Amino acid sequence: MQGGEFQSPALERLVRNLQALPGLGRKSATRIALHLIGRETAAAELVASVSDALVQVGSCGRCGALTEVDPCPICTSPAREAAQLCIVASPVDILPFEKAAFFRGRYFVLGGLLSPLDGVRAEDLPFARLAERVDTDGVREVVLALDASVEGETTALYVQRLLAGRGLRLTRLATGIPVGGALAYTDEATLHRAFAHRLDF
Amino acid sequence: MQGGEFQSPALERLVRNLQALPGLGRKSATRIALHLIGRETAAAELVASVSDALVQVGSCGRCGALTEVDPCPICTSPAREAAQLCIVASPVDILPFEKAAFFRGRYFVLGGLLSPLDGVRAEDLPFARLAERVDTDGVREVVLALDASVEGETTALYVQRLLAGRGLRLTRLATGIPVGGALAYTDEATLHRAFAHRLDF
Repeated sequence: MQGGEFQSPALERLVRNLQALPGLGRKSATRIALHLIGRETAAAELVASVSDALVQVGSCGRCGALTEVDPCPICTSPAREAAQLCIVASPVDILPFEKAAFFRGRYFVLGGLLSPLDGVRAEDLPFARLAERVDTDGVREVVLALDASVEGETTALYVQRLLAGRGLRLTRLATGIPVGGALAYTDEATLHRAFAHRLDF
Repeated sequence: MQGGEFQSPALERLVRNLQALPGLGRKSATRIALHLIGRETAAAELVASVSDALVQVGSCGRCGALTEVDPCPICTSPAREAAQLCIVASPVDILPFEKAAFFRGRYFVLGGLLSPLDGVRAEDLPFARLAERVDTDGVREVVLALDASVEGETTALYVQRLLAGRGLRLTRLATGIPVGGALAYTDEATLHRAFAHRLDF
């Protein structure tokens, strides 16, 4: 596909709006627009689902997960242990945990990571609410499930200081070679970490 | 991002509908859905533009271009020469011509290319309408602007036979090294064509 504008203002407007979505360029936006133009039913269903999601989906006031009921089903389920709290950066980070289904605690979504470069400071993230939740819910272990990036490390250190002196266990996900991962294609930093945290066999 | 489903059915439905669009996988669909959830105004504008485009955009009954008025502005403009007709496979192929603005003739959109493998046969494409348009509009030159693929070649040969005996000029776009293209990275087929069609300097 190509440069140039459509003669039709309605089509051009649709392409521009699609192009404003994350990850879509002019080319993919045009492809999607033409796909929708020719499919009235699919387009109507897409439109309805966007509108419905806007109305129905909100954030859980307790943990920050995306939910249609507040507090969310995980925060209210008696089957989930309040004593174990998993801290994640974004609501989508909850998905792989729930899919794997081994974790029986609850979550706390930070909504971001500390990043001096991007101007994300401690007062921009809900650390006060986190400390309050830890205190009122009788949390005994906080699991840090943050990206293994500079921002993730910075945030982990901040949470460590924030929760110090409470006598709770603070853990973090292990870094290492992924299951099924090929050693030859492992980056140096991961290899270094995997070696440093090597386990007795 | 990850596998796993959202707890919210409305969000899950939105992600699935986005995933059904061409070029979007689970990951990019999730990213777009979360982007929309947080932006009511942008999401409403997107929804409105999809609905508007469905209502307003149609195909030109004469040339097949996407248009809000039928026949389209190019088919009715007295500034465009009816004698020169450019055949393209898809409505988007018109965009680069109109952007470059050197072509002053009109277009005819086939809506596809002959492809025995994909089951696209001559009766699936508007060849009868093409022949009729050539006859009634006094077309003197037909320019084939089709992909340089097997399907493009097959379709070009079919059009050649279809329009034979009318005494009109049938041309096709030149194949060769793109302007600014690096010779070292030119594929063999393109290089072969560019050599075969070499021009005196």
